[in-house]
Parts: sequence; C-alpha cells; structure tokens
Amino acid sequence: MSTIDPLSNPQINADVIIESRWLASMAPSNALLENHAVIVQKGLIAEILPISDARKKYTASSLVCLDEHILIPGLINLHTHAAMGMMRGMADDLPLMAWLNNHIWPAEKVVLSPQYVKDATLLACAEMLASGTTCFNDMYFYPEATALAAGEAGIRANLGLVVLDFPTAYATDADDYLQKGFNAHDSWRSNPLITSSIAPHAPYTVSDQTFEKVVIYAEQLSVGIHTHLHETRQEITQSEAQFGIRPIQRMANLGLLGPNLVAAHCVHLLENEMELLAEYGCHVAHCASSNLKLASGIAPVAALLAKGVNVGLGTDSVASNNRLDMLSEMRLSALLAKGFSEDATAVPAYQALQMATINAAKAMGMDNKIGSIEVGKFADLTAVRLGDLETLPYYDPIAHLVYSCGREQVSHTWVAGELRYSNGVFTNIEPTELKEIIQTWQPKLRQYKN
Amino acid sequence: MSTIDPLSNPQINADVIIESRWLASMAPSNALLENHAVIVQKGLIAEILPISDARKKYTASSLVCLDEHILIPGLINLHTHAAMGMMRGMADDLPLMAWLNNHIWPAEKVVLSPQYVKDATLLACAEMLASGTTCFNDMYFYPEATALAAGEAGIRANLGLVVLDFPTAYATDADDYLQKGFNAHDSWRSNPLITSSIAPHAPYTVSDQTFEKVVIYAEQLSVGIHTHLHETRQEITQSEAQFGIRPIQRMANLGLLGPNLVAAHCVHLLENEMELLAEYGCHVAHCASSNLKLASGIAPVAALLAKGVNVGLGTDSVASNNRLDMLSEMRLSALLAKGFSEDATAVPAYQALQMATINAAKAMGMDNKIGSIEVGKFADLTAVRLGDLETLPYYDPIAHLVYSCGREQVSHTWVAGELRYSNGVFTNIEPTELKEIIQTWQPKLRQYKN
Repeated sequence: MSTIDPLSNPQINADVIIESRWLASMAPSNALLENHAVIVQKGLIAEILPISDARKKYTASSLVCLDEHILIPGLINLHTHAAMGMMRGMADDLPLMAWLNNHIWPAEKVVLSPQYVKDATLLACAEMLASGTTCFNDMYFYPEATALAAGEAGIRANLGLVVLDFPTAYATDADDYLQKGFNAHDSWRSNPLITSSIAPHAPYTVSDQTFEKVVIYAEQLSVGIHTHLHETRQEITQSEAQFGIRPIQRMANLGLLGPNLVAAHCVHLLENEMELLAEYGCHVAHCASSNLKLASGIAPVAALLAKGVNVGLGTDSVASNNRLDMLSEMRLSALLAKGFSEDATAVPAYQALQMATINAAKAMGMDNKIGSIEVGKFADLTAVRLGDLETLPYYDPIAHLVYSCGREQVSHTWVAGELRYSNGVFTNIEPTELKEIIQTWQPKLRQYKN
Repeated sequence: MSTIDPLSNPQINADVIIESRWLASMAPSNALLENHAVIVQKGLIAEILPISDARKKYTASSLVCLDEHILIPGLINLHTHAAMGMMRGMADDLPLMAWLNNHIWPAEKVVLSPQYVKDATLLACAEMLASGTTCFNDMYFYPEATALAAGEAGIRANLGLVVLDFPTAYATDADDYLQKGFNAHDSWRSNPLITSSIAPHAPYTVSDQTFEKVVIYAEQLSVGIHTHLHETRQEITQSEAQFGIRPIQRMANLGLLGPNLVAAHCVHLLENEMELLAEYGCHVAHCASSNLKLASGIAPVAALLAKGVNVGLGTDSVASNNRLDMLSEMRLSALLAKGFSEDATAVPAYQALQMATINAAKAMGMDNKIGSIEVGKFADLTAVRLGDLETLPYYDPIAHLVYSCGREQVSHTWVAGELRYSNGVFTNIEPTELKEIIQTWQPKLRQYKN
C-alpha cells in the first residue's frame, strides 16, 4: 500500500486556472514571472503561484495552458468614442475642420440615435476584445446605449456622460445633457462592468458656467471628469482670443484640474503647463495615432512622464485612427517618444505596457480593481502568443510584446474571469449577425465619405 | 440543335487567373479597378480585364477568387538587412552607439558566417512573404548566402554587395569586399529572382577612395548604389569635423549622387540638400520605425515628396524595427508625415502605397519589371482581405488597406506568378523546420541581449 501525498490530490476547486509561460503582473511595473498560474474565483484573481504548485493545490472546470504566451493585465483604452465605429475610414487624409464640418458632423446628424450607438459600439467592442482590450474610457451621446452594447459584449467600460453647450439629437442644452447623463448613470448602477465619468467635451464647446457645474456634480457623484484638452494649436489660439488665456489655465481657474481629470491629447504644452498637470495630479490620455492622422502634432510624452504626469494610451475613435488596437498604440507611443525626444531610452517597452494598463486604471480611479495582475483585482486578462514564426526569435518577452507582436497575436481575452474572446471566436458576439448590422448603417453613411 | 456562342467556351489556357473584388494597379497611381481579373502566363501579367470577360476568354488550372480583397502590386521593402533576422529584439530601448557597440557588433562577430546569413535570411523571407512583401533591397555580408535563402523562399531580392573599409569575418579591406561582391554577383546571374547593387555601407565607414571605386564599378556593372545617408545628427557632425562638409555634399563631390543611388534614412536634411537629392534624381528609402526606435529623428518625407524626390519605404532590420512589415510601415509613414508636417493631407493613403510599390521599384531601376500591376510586368502580387470583422466597415479600399488593415489581413503572396504564401501556409518554407533552425542560433545570440 502506498502512502498518498495529500498535495497530489488537489483540494480547492477554482473557476478558472490560467497557466502561462510568462506573466507580466505590472506590480511592480517590470516584474516578469515565468511558468505561473492565475487562479480565478468569482471573477477575481484569487492567487498567483508557480504552475507546479497550482497543479497540486487547485482543480478547475476551466484550465487554459498558455505554453508560449505572455499573460498581461487586460489592455485599457483610455480615450475613445466607441460609437463612431461605423465611421471607420469614412473620411481620411483631411484637415480637422474639413473632416468635422463636412463629414463627421453631417453624418452624425443623420444616424445619431440609441440604436446607432448600440450597434456601432458592439462593433467597437468586438474589435477591442479581439485585440486584447478589456476596458475602455468612452465619451459619446446616448451612453445608456453604449452600456447596453458593452454589457452584451461583456467588456468593461467607463462611460463619459457627455456635456456640450449646443443642441444635438441627444440633448438640447448643458442642463439637458447633464440630466440625461445622470439618468444613464442611474440606469447602470447595478451593472458591475459599467462606471461613469462626466465628460465635458472640450474647452471650445463648453462654457465656463457648465464647466463649473461639471466640477460640482463630479464631486457629488464621486466620479471622474473626462475631456479633450490642448488637442490642436487652433484650440489654443481660439481660447487666447476668446478668454485671453490658454485652455489649461482656464481649466485651472475653473477648478477642473485635479486627480480626477483625464485630459485627452495634451499635444501642445508649455513647460509650465506640464508642471501644472503634474502638480494637480491630472492624467493624460495620449492618442498617438489620432494626433498624427489629424495632423494635430506630437505630444511630448517623454517630457510629461519625466515630470511625473500619469499618462495612459487611447486610440480615439476609428474615424481618426482607424484601429481600436492598443498593441499598435503601445508600439507607436514607444517609438514616437524616442524619435520625438531623440532619446532611444525614452518610453521603454515596459513603460508602454504600463501606460496601456495600470496607468490607465489609475487615471480612471480604478487601480484598486483593474490594471495589474494582483490578488483581489478583477481577472481582466489578455494572453498574447510570443512564438509565431513571423515574430521569432524573442529575447525579452515584454519588449517582444510591444515591438514585434501585433493584435494578430492576441489569443485570449478575459473580463472579470469570463472568457470573452479566444482565437477568433467571441463568446457573446456572432460575427455574421454583426456584419449584417454593419450593412444596415453603411449605406446611410457612405454619402459622407470623401 | 443550339448555336454555340464561341465566347462561352474559353479558348485560352492561362497559368493562373486571379479574380479580385478590388485591384489597385498603381498605374496610374490611384486607379482602382472593381471586379477585375489578372491573367498570369509564364510568370508575367498577360492581361487585366473584367472578371466577366475573363471567364469567357480564359481557363486555367489555378483560379483564385478574391471576393472581399484588394489585389495590389507585391510590396517592396526598399531597405533591410534580412540576415539580422535572428537579432529581432535582441537589444531594445538603447541609444544607437550602445546598441551597435555592446550588442549588434559583438553578436555579429560571433555568428557571422554564410550559414548564419542563409538561416536568418530564410526567417526574414518567411516574415516578408507572410506580410505581402515580394521583393527586398538588402545590404549585408555574404550576399551569396542571402541569395540562396531568397531563392529557397521564392522571393525577389536586390542584393547589395556590401563594401566597408574595415575587416570583418567576411572580408579584409575594401578591395576584398568588392571582389567578393563581384563573385557573388556572378554567382546569381542566371537566377531570375536576384539582382545586385553595390552597397558602400555609410559615409562614416567608407573612404573617399573606396566611394570613387564604387561609382566606377556600379557604372561598369550597370547596377545601382545603396547606402546609408544622413541617418543621425552624429554622422553629420562627424563628417563636418573630419571632412569639413556634410555627408551629402561629400557624396556629391565624389560623384555618388545620381538616379542610381538609393539613400537609406535621410533623416536630417537642409532645404538645399533636399533640392540636391531632387536635382540629381536620387531615391530615398524612408525607414520610419527604425528612425524612431533608434531615436535618429523623423525624416521630412512630405517636404522631400513636395520637392520631387522619389521616396520608397524600408523596414531596416528587425534589430531596430522589430517587424519586417510593410503594411505597418505604410501606415506609420502616412501618419507620421501628417503629424510631423502638421498637414493632414500629407502622404494620403495612395501615396503611401506608391512608396511601398512603384516608387521602390523605380528606386532600384526595376520599374519596367515590378511595382505595378501592368501587362508585361512580373506577376508579383499581394492580396489583402478587406472584410474581416475587426476592420469593417470600409468606404475607400486603398485608405482601408493603409489605415485599418494589418499584415494579419494578407491572404496571398505571389512572386513571378508563383504562389509563395497563402492563408498561413508557405509553399517552400516548413515552419517547424525553420523554428528548429532558429533554436540553433538563439542560444549563441542570447548573451548579447540587454
């Protein structure tokens, strides 16, 4: 009779066990674990331990073995307008104002509706899940429709309650936008995947009075603020003409600057403006592709990081990118920072991955829940193949992820422990149906193409 | 008895018929054909005609129907060092001189041999074919080994006969490099896929005397010249200190400038230097990713094009990119030109595609044979899927190709009418074997990683 080793008989039943060749926890930033397993219980990360130990301790109905992969925190898209999904490539190679006035805005006038927002967001969610994104920070009309689509796809979203001072199909004036936003906010309170921010669109579309209200309501609701800031030179010139000051100073005067502000773009900044952002603890959503494509310019990311500003990455919408692809944004942001600052050590690979994960979580005030692979956080996880022929060999897994891999190497995406995408297959999205939905909108939008 | 329509019974037997939803011939530049077929006979494009007509006129043993694709001229990588393939990601996030002195050069010292060059080039060819590249303009040691690998993979290559003034494992001095180059040139004369250029490495590694010889030999052999030029500020400063003039002026004085020169990089250019390049009809190989990654800077591509300089695109090697991915280079070059020039109309999508096809063919003096889809040219062709869910919808096929699609959408690659890659499968390359070959080299190189 042989003695039974009590450890050879796993005692604990987990929901999911993910065994991975490499694991970048991002806590601390550049830690890299080898042959570790993540144990998932009730959507949360219950334990991280060597595979050999995990096999002794746990059993699970779902075991995923990633033998040539890196497991990373789910990527977070810190600035997008998911519902512009149907406008991908509708108008390329155009200056910003011609693009907005002659294409984007007329098209929005025709299609803007809850159904459009839901359908287009579902498309965006499919693209994001398939490229390893598990959470997006959004700003668009009809956010309750965005929430429906995100819920259907099973992706996490921090939805901006958009505020403007001019009427659209969605709302008539600032108070109406705010009221509709609060109703939306109430509607998803019980949805664990959806959170809110208040999203005054930009300094050139929102009045002082409205910004002041936004600050008060954001505090009352304990939510963040998400706005566009210093995207173009024109925005700054216009502010100087209208208000006598640059937009950031105006935001400072109005009480907008603070640790609950996510400022998208921040392309054109003076030295003291970077210091202002750092002092106030503001967060920047760097949108490299969009800023290049609309010829807004190149944001001084290396300088911002050096000053201690927390910077995350965003795709902006597919109307100005034209991909919702955070792997592409990581690569571009790391490369662009080096070329622009003429310093090859600027934004090394692990820092690009930080920007796409934990930095973005911090920016949304959600770093206690997501952004790293740590016990107690949601199991929002992405697996990326490192061993495809076209990307071999590799020496440093994180650098390989950022510089060599593309979204085509994303193999698995989990949100709160639920597998939402795996090797070309979505759990909740039926591609054929979604393609049919696209076909209902594209003919309406085609007339606005350039 | 019924009358037989003579046209309903195809009369002509073609080698290959490729029917495509969209076809970008690049002749003229932005022409876009719908539902056309390319007829291939003996490796050449025999006819381009509407699908309906093709079905009446031709039959073929190989018929490929591309119902949601764009067929484009095979992409041409105008500047690379394929044999650095095994050094992908070996040393990232480092300044140029630390990268060269502490990593690349010591590693080369250890592995440099014909076998290494052949093996590493085969890996590079696999990556290039899988991402739609049908021809590459190379510069490396042991070019006859590069030719062997290219021949094995079935990809077209214009191989630089590298010349330096210092010894390596390959050759001892300039004359030895030249003689070895001429021997290599002779060795592939009967190979229809391989052509030559003479490749003096760079102004900082080649003497005046050697450059003068290069000019004479290039004329005698009727081949082009391929060099690195104005890649970094340091190169320029060093030239000013050593020769009293900037490298381009030195090249002009030595007779290097002319329509047979492909100058890689050209990042830092004065106004009059751009004019000089235009006047002499020189060609520039723009390497956006590499220039950013090594922090060399951002080349003034929009200005060069405006002055009439012919610009093609190159990946440089995977040691500084880290992808041999021309779709990624097209997208980056189009975006970067806009952001850098702050002009959203700079380098529109069709111009990026021109740079990656016909412009590169012109640069190598091969535009009578490749670079566009025209009758009489080689059937070097690439098909890209436009209808994948993650890239839908699309409005303009060429803009979609450049801004939304990635190499993951490349479905077919033909070189001289031979299918070399299709949906994950290579005709001549066995991935498992190639992965084993990589495993023989990687341990030798790993010690040089950062």
